Amino acid sequence: MLAEIITIGDEILIGQVLDSNSAYIGKELNKIGISVYQITSIQDDRKQILKTLAEASQRVDIILITGGLGPTNDDITKKCLCEFFDDTLVRDEKTLRHIEHLFEKYIDTPISNLNRDQALLPSKASILHNEYGTAAGMWFNENAKVFISMPGVPYEMKGLMEREIIPKLVETFDRPYIIHKTIITLGLGESAIAERIEKWEANLPVAIKLAYLPNLGMVRLRLTAKGEDEAHLKDIIENQVTALYEFIGDIIYGFEDEDPIEVVISRRLTERKWSLSTAESCTGGRLATKFTQAPGSSVCFMGSMVCYATESKIELLGVPKELIEEKSVVSEEVAKAMAKGARDKFHTEFAVSTTGNAGPTKGDSDAEIGTVFIGIATPEGVTAHKFMFGNHRDKVIGKSVNKALELLQKSILNYKAKS
Amino acid sequence: MLAEIITIGDEILIGQVLDSNSAYIGKELNKIGISVYQITSIQDDRKQILKTLAEASQRVDIILITGGLGPTNDDITKKCLCEFFDDTLVRDEKTLRHIEHLFEKYIDTPISNLNRDQALLPSKASILHNEYGTAAGMWFNENAKVFISMPGVPYEMKGLMEREIIPKLVETFDRPYIIHKTIITLGLGESAIAERIEKWEANLPVAIKLAYLPNLGMVRLRLTAKGEDEAHLKDIIENQVTALYEFIGDIIYGFEDEDPIEVVISRRLTERKWSLSTAESCTGGRLATKFTQAPGSSVCFMGSMVCYATESKIELLGVPKELIEEKSVVSEEVAKAMAKGARDKFHTEFAVSTTGNAGPTKGDSDAEIGTVFIGIATPEGVTAHKFMFGNHRDKVIGKSVNKALELLQKSILNYKAKS
Repeated sequence: MLAEIITIGDEILIGQVLDSNSAYIGKELNKIGISVYQITSIQDDRKQILKTLAEASQRVDIILITGGLGPTNDDITKKCLCEFFDDTLVRDEKTLRHIEHLFEKYIDTPISNLNRDQALLPSKASILHNEYGTAAGMWFNENAKVFISMPGVPYEMKGLMEREIIPKLVETFDRPYIIHKTIITLGLGESAIAERIEKWEANLPVAIKLAYLPNLGMVRLRLTAKGEDEAHLKDIIENQVTALYEFIGDIIYGFEDEDPIEVVISRRLTERKWSLSTAESCTGGRLATKFTQAPGSSVCFMGSMVCYATESKIELLGVPKELIEEKSVVSEEVAKAMAKGARDKFHTEFAVSTTGNAGPTKGDSDAEIGTVFIGIATPEGVTAHKFMFGNHRDKVIGKSVNKALELLQKSILNYKAKS
Repeated sequence: MLAEIITIGDEILIGQVLDSNSAYIGKELNKIGISVYQITSIQDDRKQILKTLAEASQRVDIILITGGLGPTNDDITKKCLCEFFDDTLVRDEKTLRHIEHLFEKYIDTPISNLNRDQALLPSKASILHNEYGTAAGMWFNENAKVFISMPGVPYEMKGLMEREIIPKLVETFDRPYIIHKTIITLGLGESAIAERIEKWEANLPVAIKLAYLPNLGMVRLRLTAKGEDEAHLKDIIENQVTALYEFIGDIIYGFEDEDPIEVVISRRLTERKWSLSTAESCTGGRLATKFTQAPGSSVCFMGSMVCYATESKIELLGVPKELIEEKSVVSEEVAKAMAKGARDKFHTEFAVSTTGNAGPTKGDSDAEIGTVFIGIATPEGVTAHKFMFGNHRDKVIGKSVNKALELLQKSILNYKAKS
């Protein structure tokens, strides 16, 4: 069962908007055994839309289209679908009532004909209810192919996927299972890993596909198996993972869950009724952003002191001024004092701190660009480690965030006292 | 002059990685007058790669390929390019020395044959030096088409684009000018705007294309003109913008620079030697992340108090406990006290605060989901405003960030006392 995602809209092609929709759709389809064969991003252009729809229907079984469903003249997806399926627009009463309701409840301006016209929908389409917006989704069946059209606004698209499209795809198609298992390694580059696992890789069953995903200091190895028998697929993957330990057991750090590491950390903290705070210099609020992403995070995450200025480290986190003068603001001692400061100020069990020089020029410290110290405070004490994260600002900040999360998770797992 | 971007790698198709590379490439190409006609994301699959290369060369003049250049077996782009151009691999001595240098300087593990083999490159390619990594870029000329291959690691790709590819494209092609002007409006939805500017839109010169970009509380109107005469293009766009004021002058808030609003704010603060801090509850560090994105931001951005817990608002920002008890944590008064607290604690001229209920369930406050208060403290006083940002968590947080930046910029522009 193959799918193609088509995004319509110049804003992606000119780089004005990042295509996060396709990543989300790809992930959700994979979970139900549908592989994305291709993602195609095209312009708001009638000819190109029609051509791409025709080509995609040659390549795959399911075509998911996002974008171009707004009420204004530059939105032409609905018209193009009508032309493609030789269809006409008819008023959908349920959609009209929903549009009127949204305007009454949430929108200050009065409803207009352009808004009402969003309820004009192709007669051949099954209409998919868009809880969060005025552009309905559409589902077409044509020559054993399915075409699905969704708005490009991310939270509207997600609502449609969750409530309407995924259930309908599950109901409509017999799908294989796609099992991914992603192993997280730390400490070796991808070529060094490849050499160590050469023999193992050569003997992988053909049903299993291996990919190396190097990223900011960790290499993830992704094993993928696809087939009808879920239990069997899981078995052969688990067997290969077990075999892999013989070759690189020393650098396997863990497995990638469905959930990112900050969600795993939050869950464990919440279960144990522990709490967390952060003190961020070079990561500038990115750790706090991670921990406040998920609903319910306020249960375990108390807050962050983003102390970009040296003065704030002293006044707000209580880092001794003399310590900074003696050791420099980018130092093991200051990282420890920051972590301890956050733990004290926010009254949390755990705290993590970052201080470093991300470049491109040296800041308040003489430390070489790329130098980062990460501190961890637990009920058992405070530690800090030094890292050299290279010569590129984005890389240094990104690696700092990943490493801080990694050290934090380890220290939480190691802390047995209250567990 | 049309281009296509091809990304190679299952990780984008299964949603494991977000395709930020294509957005970056699209933006940079636009700046030099090259339009991206299509972005195509495909699997690490020989047949699909060869087919897509052939099809793309029918569609466009310039094909930019990212991904699949690593040292491991799953990286097959180089082999496919050899097959496509009927070419063979030869050792590039300069690349070999660079790989050896990177290993000596930055990498703990010894260099291996797999690494050295990254210096084996197609004989027909011009080799592009990758300062930040071991995978060289490649540039092929074939039948008046250009094919460019880059690694998928974002900062390596960016380094290649900046130092090698953009200069070479500029040198190789006569290009038209592409002028974008994006007008930011606040306060009306896209359909209401469309009605007000109907007459103006109908009379737009054919050379100008209009797009509506609604996003989290602001609608951006993008005008695009393409042609040989840069001055003329700028003129006709400016004339249309002037004409537009007649219809929606009351809701035009400003123009989108090359730079995002937080960069514009930082620049103005730095010029005036003013400083900024933030106190973030419902935005959870996202404002700090924005302000610490750019190099040099430590000059004006002092830090952020991310006080997710009510207790931290009291202890660390000095919000009076009685005020919270009386008015609730999500209130105009608390937003003001938070902004004032940040301004005092970080000793800054300006501070912005956010407190709200992003949902999906009610937190420490009884406020309806979607309620957000944003406070602004300046040398002239403190204000706060209430907003209702809807029923979806991501939407509420995203709108809060945008609105906070907007109010902040306005208050900085309005503050004349020291200017």
